[in-house]
Parts: sequence; C-alpha cells; structure tokens
Amino acid sequence: MPRPARLDALLDSASRLFSASGFAATSVRQVAAAADLTKAGLYYHVRDKEDLLFRICEGSISTILERARTAMAEGGDPGRRIAALIGVHTDFFFAHPSNLGVLNRDMGALSPGRRADIARLERAYLDLIRGVIGEGQAAGLFRPVDVGVAAFTLLSVLNHLDVWYRREGAVGPAEVVRQITDLVLGGLLADAPAPAQGASP
Amino acid sequence: MPRPARLDALLDSASRLFSASGFAATSVRQVAAAADLTKAGLYYHVRDKEDLLFRICEGSISTILERARTAMAEGGDPGRRIAALIGVHTDFFFAHPSNLGVLNRDMGALSPGRRADIARLERAYLDLIRGVIGEGQAAGLFRPVDVGVAAFTLLSVLNHLDVWYRREGAVGPAEVVRQITDLVLGGLLADAPAPAQGASP
Repeated sequence: MPRPARLDALLDSASRLFSASGFAATSVRQVAAAADLTKAGLYYHVRDKEDLLFRICEGSISTILERARTAMAEGGDPGRRIAALIGVHTDFFFAHPSNLGVLNRDMGALSPGRRADIARLERAYLDLIRGVIGEGQAAGLFRPVDVGVAAFTLLSVLNHLDVWYRREGAVGPAEVVRQITDLVLGGLLADAPAPAQGASP
Repeated sequence: MPRPARLDALLDSASRLFSASGFAATSVRQVAAAADLTKAGLYYHVRDKEDLLFRICEGSISTILERARTAMAEGGDPGRRIAALIGVHTDFFFAHPSNLGVLNRDMGALSPGRRADIARLERAYLDLIRGVIGEGQAAGLFRPVDVGVAAFTLLSVLNHLDVWYRREGAVGPAEVVRQITDLVLGGLLADAPAPAQGASP
C-alpha cells in the first residue's frame, strides 16, 4: 500500500535510531529531531513510539511478502524462484538497511496483539519460502533436508545482513547478492545427480 | 578456564532471563531469584548487572574459540574442518541455548572497553573461520566467493539457531546439525551444481 513520502522518511529515521541505540533507549524527541519534525509534527503521523515500531515492522515484512508473492507469480523453476526471493529480500535490505534489524531485534517490545499481527505476516512469508523449497525437493532438485531447517537457514542469512554487510566494503551490493545466492543455492541443490557443467572432480 | 559450577549456573539463569525479556528489562533481583540466590549472594559472584552480561558474552565466545582451535589442531581437509567448526558452535548452543542470543543482541549494552574485549574474541573466531574457508578455496575445493561473505553467511546460520530451533520439534539436535552441515558445505563446495540455470543477464 502506498504511503506518504513524509511518513516513509520518518520511519526510516526512526529505524536508523532504533537500530543504532535500541528501541528502549531511543526517545520520541530524538526520532522527531532526526526526521526534522517537531514532536507535534511527529504525532500527526504516528500515535506513539510503539506505533513507530509497529509501522516499521509491519511495513517491512508486508512489503517483502507482497513483492515475494509477485515474484513467485512469475514462475520459473524452484532454483530460479529461490534466487528471486533472495533478490526481493536483499533489495529491501539495501533500500532500508536498518529495518530488518529492528524487525528482528525489537519486535519483542510490541504489545501482544501487534506482535501477533507481525508474526502472522512472518508466518505467511515463511510458508511461501517453505513452499518453494518443498517443490524443489518434490522435483528431486533440492536436497531432502527438513523444509523448516532449510527455510530458517535461508532466513538467518537474509535477515542478518545488517550485522556485517558494509556497502563501503570491497564487495558491492549486486556482487554480495550473487555470492549469497550461489552459497544458498549450492546448499539447497541436491548434489547426487548433478546436471552441472561437465564432470569436475 | 574452569569456573565454579555455582557461577556457571548463575550465568545460565541470567542468560535465560536476558534472552526472554531483554537485558535492559531484567533486574538483578530477578536474576538472583531465578538462580536461587539472595542479591548479596549474587554479588559474591559478580560485580553488577553489566558484569553478568560481560561474563555471559566473554564466556560464550572464548569457550567456542578455544574449542574451535582445539578442533582445528586435529587437522583434516577444509570440508571436514568446517563440519568440525559447525559441531563446536552447535554443541555450545545446545548446552547453553540462551547465550548466543544474548551475545548477539545485548552486547551493545556493555561499556566500550568491555565491548572491545568481546569484539577482539569475535574477530579471532572470524579469522579462524576465514582461514579455513581460504584454505578450501586455495585448494580448489571451495567456491571462490569473498571469504568474508562466506564466513559471515556461516556465522549468520550458526548464531541465530536460538531464533527458530526448538528441541521439542520434529528434528533432533544431531539431525539438525547434520542437515545444516549439508546445507553449508553444499554451498561452500566448488563442485556442487551451478546455481539456477546459469546465465542470468
């Protein structure tokens, strides 16, 4: 769902601060200042600090889920669809580098009802990933490990890029996505009947 | 270094509480109660709440590093050594299921000097992993991706098991380790089938 650019900028400012100092240690005043708003201006957009957190979490996971569904609708074999999922998730990370960290680390600060809303979206995303992996296994393309273990292993890689990846480093965004895709797909693909480029020993 | 069993039990209680409620939201009184100690009894073992956090972090990463060094000293080809590293890290996780989450999520609450101590140990562990991956690549066994990308991808998988793995679930500890090792090694090994159907433009 489209949102006003001002709100998006506010949420990005807030997630940068939450990510740097933690949700509990960040004040609404700091968020307003970072977004170049008065406190009253901020309260025009959100109800309170928890509302900021909820919108960051909800906006992140629902955007990724929606784009992932769109990408899956384009079809392709399971390997190509896993690569597309990695593309969707990492594109979101590069556009909003702090959001996934906030989603993964601060979601516990939400009230139970709102936490359940986020958990529902996360569950839908997990189910989508499990589905693709399950299809790859059913087709004999993917290694027959537990679907949940494979899905969470992939999500662990995608959700914690903010912990270590630095854009200024030696490996640019497109290249890191290519390498992660190689590592993840290499892990998923069944290595018994390798339909690969010639028989490298 | 061997530590009194009482202190180990105290640190395990504290890490369970920090992991469940967050470091900031947990009181020393709660930790003492969970460890069946008076507050005075707790202060016999640690200086303050930050000291508890430091000892959990320091104990976790130094134990893993020491055991990883021992395992590496036993030699073997790089694939076998990556499997041994996964074994060391996951063994620690199963013995102290809350500690890695505390290390990864609450380390920011340490004072800068103590945070630097932990960062030094983490750096040594990262270097050890990078070294094994680099050897595997030099021997032509491992995929020629950036060594840092490969090492952090592995660490992302190992460090976030607490987020999703439940011992009571369908996949037991030994089996989940086997499957994760297959997924990770399948990704690292150069002779795994090529990702997707090759030439994406």
